[in-house]
Amino acid sequence: MFIDDTIAAIATAPGEGGIGIIRISGSNSLKVAEEIFKAVSGKKISEYNSRTLVYGNIFDGEKRIDEVLVAYMEGPRSYTGEDVIEINCHGGFISVKKILELILTKDVRLAEAGEFTKRAFLNGRIDLSQAEAVIDVIKSKTDKAQEVAQNQLEGSLANKIKSLRLKVTEVLAQLEVSIDFSDEDVEDVTYKEIEEKSLELREEIKKLYDSAESGKILRDGLKTVIIGKPNVGKSSLLNSILGENRAIVTEIAGTTRDVIEEFVNIKGIPLKIVDTAGIRETEDIVEKIGVQKSKESIDSADLVIIVLDSSKPLTDEDLEILESAKSKKTIVLLNKIDLDQAIDETAIEEFVGKDNIIKISALKNEGIEQIHDKIESMVFAGDVKSSSNLVITNSRHKDALFKAYNSINDAIDGIEQRLPYDFIEVDFKNIWDYLGYINGDTVQEDLLDTIFSNFCIGK
Amino acid sequence: MFIDDTIAAIATAPGEGGIGIIRISGSNSLKVAEEIFKAVSGKKISEYNSRTLVYGNIFDGEKRIDEVLVAYMEGPRSYTGEDVIEINCHGGFISVKKILELILTKDVRLAEAGEFTKRAFLNGRIDLSQAEAVIDVIKSKTDKAQEVAQNQLEGSLANKIKSLRLKVTEVLAQLEVSIDFSDEDVEDVTYKEIEEKSLELREEIKKLYDSAESGKILRDGLKTVIIGKPNVGKSSLLNSILGENRAIVTEIAGTTRDVIEEFVNIKGIPLKIVDTAGIRETEDIVEKIGVQKSKESIDSADLVIIVLDSSKPLTDEDLEILESAKSKKTIVLLNKIDLDQAIDETAIEEFVGKDNIIKISALKNEGIEQIHDKIESMVFAGDVKSSSNLVITNSRHKDALFKAYNSINDAIDGIEQRLPYDFIEVDFKNIWDYLGYINGDTVQEDLLDTIFSNFCIGK
Repeated sequence: MFIDDTIAAIATAPGEGGIGIIRISGSNSLKVAEEIFKAVSGKKISEYNSRTLVYGNIFDGEKRIDEVLVAYMEGPRSYTGEDVIEINCHGGFISVKKILELILTKDVRLAEAGEFTKRAFLNGRIDLSQAEAVIDVIKSKTDKAQEVAQNQLEGSLANKIKSLRLKVTEVLAQLEVSIDFSDEDVEDVTYKEIEEKSLELREEIKKLYDSAESGKILRDGLKTVIIGKPNVGKSSLLNSILGENRAIVTEIAGTTRDVIEEFVNIKGIPLKIVDTAGIRETEDIVEKIGVQKSKESIDSADLVIIVLDSSKPLTDEDLEILESAKSKKTIVLLNKIDLDQAIDETAIEEFVGKDNIIKISALKNEGIEQIHDKIESMVFAGDVKSSSNLVITNSRHKDALFKAYNSINDAIDGIEQRLPYDFIEVDFKNIWDYLGYINGDTVQEDLLDTIFSNFCIGK
Repeated sequence: MFIDDTIAAIATAPGEGGIGIIRISGSNSLKVAEEIFKAVSGKKISEYNSRTLVYGNIFDGEKRIDEVLVAYMEGPRSYTGEDVIEINCHGGFISVKKILELILTKDVRLAEAGEFTKRAFLNGRIDLSQAEAVIDVIKSKTDKAQEVAQNQLEGSLANKIKSLRLKVTEVLAQLEVSIDFSDEDVEDVTYKEIEEKSLELREEIKKLYDSAESGKILRDGLKTVIIGKPNVGKSSLLNSILGENRAIVTEIAGTTRDVIEEFVNIKGIPLKIVDTAGIRETEDIVEKIGVQKSKESIDSADLVIIVLDSSKPLTDEDLEILESAKSKKTIVLLNKIDLDQAIDETAIEEFVGKDNIIKISALKNEGIEQIHDKIESMVFAGDVKSSSNLVITNSRHKDALFKAYNSINDAIDGIEQRLPYDFIEVDFKNIWDYLGYINGDTVQEDLLDTIFSNFCIGK
């Protein structure tokens, strides 16, 4: 693929902030920047060392647009591997827009979403798993999620895939050599050696694959719905849980305000709270939206938190909601344990099990820590939590690993049945390809488009 | 005021973007940056030239936090006039937060809102009118507003105030000298000379003051309410007006999503549309919120746009709304002119005047341009529109000019009455002080706090 056009976009988040950055990448970058920028020193950008912040103004003809710092980063030592210009101007909406519009009147086009990072990949500066990590770092909702994405960006997954593929190559080489011989004694040794390597490989692939469940949650958040009738103390509970853990309200760019998502950081796990606004406004989600709607919320959730007033007996409505949450990860909170108890715990245990019932007093702030612990233990399989940061967070990677895992199983079956080498070779070639999906070695152009379209513009 | 502590903050807008910047200013900047940053080259930041972007990683002890570019800008040639470090890291919420938190564990405190710019002012790099322009540039809603703010930032107002004060000084000097003499002939000459200068000065101050009405609108937007019954075509009209002029949906940081403001750019004028969401959702604001509520919206608006269906007769409700908008800038849009007409135009004219009625067809996109022209002519007094960009946009400046204007009037009265020189001198000293409020020469510490608290953190 030959890249010869120059692209530009706003690289900072939209909104009011001190500084905004416009980034240009491609062979025209410097030329365009020289046309619109006048340094206060009177010198040209090219007279400065690469990577120097030069102070001056952006001009549209005679008209001054903004006071800026401009840096030229000569390729290949730049983000994209191409010649890059970064213009630091005043933040907010207008200055960045004006400067970008001016640039786009030159021989430059607007960058597509993720196109800077795509170029970094296509120019061989990073592999595909690293490119994908860039957006994961940016979109990460908790420190833990950012750490995992950072490690992937640094190359932890890239290196792991490289080492797995090296092992596949070794097996393939051994198979190639063996196909040309056909001494039965040698054959048996070969089968045993390959089987051993295959079992090791399967173990490694499985371990990676197994990390994907919690990885996905780290990356995308755990979609959580909090269900409770009026006056069970849901609102004060919400405040207790959220407390200082409240993290982020994200407005998804380009959409209406109805899709604002709220994330809460529970021990590094981003809980994506559904319908929080509804809960807050009415303190009364069940009454407002009804049992039927509550059930629908439950259906689309990864985690259901049901709040009950333990000082009152269970109602039919309660039982209906407990029933509908049966197939989900569910935590039942028995609130108001400071009052006389009237609730039938055994009945609840039948639905969710004793372990998933937590007694709390939102009023007295009792039991809140247990909720956090419970959520943590539900999300993380014991070893993942404390172990390395090599976690699969991307469902595309998970799919590829699943296919590789199936192929290694096929290979092992074939070895056990002593099938001819070339049958087994096919399986290993597949493993090689599937692993190559992850680092982009065997990826198709249209898949690249899909991947980078999830990026923000300007990255 | 002695500044000796080092401050830090996130300087880019919060949200998902490619790049985030953390800024540090003060004498510890470089020391702190060296502690947490490792250049890939292995060199120290101080080994590079000032203003060079150095590639490397931020570390918290052994733990890598993010891949960054760091620039050291040695004072006084920096934004604040102090030693400044800027760290360009990945955008989004977490990386910037982690790095800032790490910095704040060192001998650095979190910057207050506007504190970087406040320091630029206190260190004499810019005057107060320029400092205030910084946030106006950032918060500007249209190109025109940004241009006016940019000019103020560049020093247009600062220079104007300087030249006005110079004239005041000249008069004061003349008065000082004259107080020591008391020849009646000389006296009369002096009064005449001073009166001439005073009249010139008053003219200049008045011109500045007069620009403030449209200036305020440029800066803060024109609070506009669109009122109309169901099915008058309000929603399609809104889309026509907004069209590609739709500019900005701002979520005010730290508040709930209910206060999202929508700005529309009409010929450089930022219209702040109230209740747009309501209009869109229901296509039915009057029915939904009732005539009473509509009246309340009208009360708080700067501009009222009433949409009527011209194919139907006026109702009592219509008349009631027209009545309540009587004291406001009002435009009445008669929609559906492509249908048979049934509305009583003369009755409407009684409320808003013929000039403020515009016939349109939102369906056929007719008459929309006239709406834009009408709004423009309502906002801009003829000369301001086309004239220089020296426009007073800040109500604080307006107040100061008003006081200066009153004082110059007092002075002129005194001169006409041939009051003693020292009476007149008092007025001129007041003018000197009031003009000094604008450039910060005679400003008090607590006022500074108020001014900069309107800034965003990180600027």
